[in-house]
Amino acid sequence: MYDVIIVGGGPAGLVAAAYCLRKRLEVLLIAPELGGKANYRMHLAGLEGFEHITGEEIVRKFRSQLQYLDFARIRDMVVEIEPVEEESGEIFVVMTEKGNSFPTRAVILATGVEPMRLHVPDEELMAGRGLSYSATSHAPLFWEREAAVIGSGDLALRSATELVTIAKRVVLVAPESVPESPLKHKLDSYDNVTLLEKHHVTRLHANGYVHSMTVSDTSGNEQEIPVTGVFVELGLHPYSDLVADLVDLDPERYVIVDDRCHTSRSGIFAAGDVTNTYNEQVLIATGEGAKAALAAYDFLLELDA
Amino acid sequence: MYDVIIVGGGPAGLVAAAYCLRKRLEVLLIAPELGGKANYRMHLAGLEGFEHITGEEIVRKFRSQLQYLDFARIRDMVVEIEPVEEESGEIFVVMTEKGNSFPTRAVILATGVEPMRLHVPDEELMAGRGLSYSATSHAPLFWEREAAVIGSGDLALRSATELVTIAKRVVLVAPESVPESPLKHKLDSYDNVTLLEKHHVTRLHANGYVHSMTVSDTSGNEQEIPVTGVFVELGLHPYSDLVADLVDLDPERYVIVDDRCHTSRSGIFAAGDVTNTYNEQVLIATGEGAKAALAAYDFLLELDA
Repeated sequence: MYDVIIVGGGPAGLVAAAYCLRKRLEVLLIAPELGGKANYRMHLAGLEGFEHITGEEIVRKFRSQLQYLDFARIRDMVVEIEPVEEESGEIFVVMTEKGNSFPTRAVILATGVEPMRLHVPDEELMAGRGLSYSATSHAPLFWEREAAVIGSGDLALRSATELVTIAKRVVLVAPESVPESPLKHKLDSYDNVTLLEKHHVTRLHANGYVHSMTVSDTSGNEQEIPVTGVFVELGLHPYSDLVADLVDLDPERYVIVDDRCHTSRSGIFAAGDVTNTYNEQVLIATGEGAKAALAAYDFLLELDA
Repeated sequence: MYDVIIVGGGPAGLVAAAYCLRKRLEVLLIAPELGGKANYRMHLAGLEGFEHITGEEIVRKFRSQLQYLDFARIRDMVVEIEPVEEESGEIFVVMTEKGNSFPTRAVILATGVEPMRLHVPDEELMAGRGLSYSATSHAPLFWEREAAVIGSGDLALRSATELVTIAKRVVLVAPESVPESPLKHKLDSYDNVTLLEKHHVTRLHANGYVHSMTVSDTSGNEQEIPVTGVFVELGLHPYSDLVADLVDLDPERYVIVDDRCHTSRSGIFAAGDVTNTYNEQVLIATGEGAKAALAAYDFLLELDA
C-alpha cells in the first residue's frame, strides 16, 4: 500500500514526488515519461545565448533526483482510479495500461494539459523554433519581430493584446469571426495589428526557424505572410478524464482546487496545469506540486493521528 | 503612476517583479533588501557538498535580473498604503520611510513572515549552522542526528512528529505544558522522543555548528543536552500590518488569498509567506509571486478594456 501515488511526470508531478520523499512518505510516480512538455525553451534566430529565466533548471534537477530513486517511479500510464471502501477507510486503486494495479491512501493528479494543435505538416518540428502554444511564456522574446496569433476566442485576443506592445506587427488569424468585446476594441486601437477573420493556417515554412506561414480564406484563396513567431491559441484540453467521475471539474474541465491543492474529494489532490490555476508556467506548476505534497502529508498525518 | 507596486524583496516579490516586467507593466519593487531570508540553506558538519534542491538558485537569478533593472526597484521601506478615489477609479498611494510617495493602480504585498526567535545569545550566528526556524525545510537533513524542537503548540508537535522518523533522537522542549491531542498521542508512541514540558532553552553552544543546548526548568535547574539540530517552532508573525485595515486577514493575521492571489480588496494582491498558504518554501513562494503578477496583469487589462 502506498501513501501517495502521483499521476504525471511533468514539473508539478516531479516536485510533488520530491516533497513526498522528503516527508518520508511511501510514494510512487506513474508517468509515461519524466519532464513533461519538452518545449519550455524557445529558440530563435539571433537570440542564442539569451538567458531566459524559467523553472526548467529546477525541473531538470528534480527529474535527475527521481531518475536515481527508481523505487519511487514507474514508466506506465494510469488508465483508471477506483475508490475502494476498506475497514480502515477509503483507499484508491490505481490501474495502469500495462495491467498493474496499486493501492494507495492518497492520489496527486498532475497530468497537465494538451494545447489544441494547428494540424499543419511538420508541426512538432517547429515547436520551440518559432512555434509556441503559450504567449504568456514566450511573447517577451518577440520584441520587434513579426508575430501571428491563431485563434478566435478570448485566449487568442488576450495573447494578441499582449504581443501587440512587444512585436513589430501582429497578425491575428481567426478561424471564426471575432465578436465585439472590450478586448477586441482595445486591440483595434493599435495600428500594428491585422485581423484575418475566417482564415486558417495551412502551412508553416521554416528554415531552421519559422519564417512564414500560408493562410487560406474560406474560398481557398491562399497568401504567404512572413512571421518569425506563431502563437497557437486555440485552447487547451486538461487531462482530467481520469478523475471526471470523482472530483468537481470547472466548465472547461479543469480540476477545481482550493489554495492548498485539495479537490472536492478527500484523498485526491491535484497540481499544475490540470487545475484551474494559471497554466503553462513551470514556476507556478513547481510551487503547486510542492503544495499538493504538503497537503497530502497533512491529510495522512490526520488519518494516522 | 505605476501599474503595480510590489512591497517586499523576497522570493515572491522578486518573481512577481520579473513577471510584471515580462508583461511590460510599469512596476516598482520597494524593499529594504533583495533576496529575503538569508538562511535558505542549512550547513551541517559532515554534510558538505550535499546538493539540497531548493529554489534558491531561481531566487538568485531573479535577484540578479532585478539588480540590473534599477528603474524597477528602490531600497526603502513601505510604511503606509492609502487608497485614493480618483475620477478614473480607485488608486493606491504607497508611502515609504524615506518620505517618498508613489501612486499605483495595483499593489502586490509580498512582505513575508517573521519567525519567533529563541532570544538566546548569538542566535543569529547559529541560524543555518544547526539552528532552523522551519522543520519542513530542513528536517530531512537530520537523518540519524540528535535534534531538538522548541515550542508547545501544534507547529512544534507537527515538527517533532516529522523529525522523529528521521532523527536518531528528538527532544521536544515545550515552554508551556502540552495538552493531550491525537498528534501528541502519536508522538508518545515513539521511543526516541523526550518531552521536557515547562522548560526553555537558555543557551545554544556551537563550535562552527551547534553541538548542544542548555535548557532550564521553571525553578532554574539547568542541564546541557547534546544536539546538532535545533528547530525553533514557536510560531510565525506575518508582516500584514500594512494592509490590516484594507483586506481580510485570518485569525493568525495571514492575508487571505484565493487560488489566484486575490485578496478581499480589488487591486490588492498578495503572495508568499504573508498569505494563508504553506509557509517557508521558496519553491511555493516563487510560484505564488508569478501568480500574483499574472492576476495583477489580468486586473489591469480589464480596467483598460
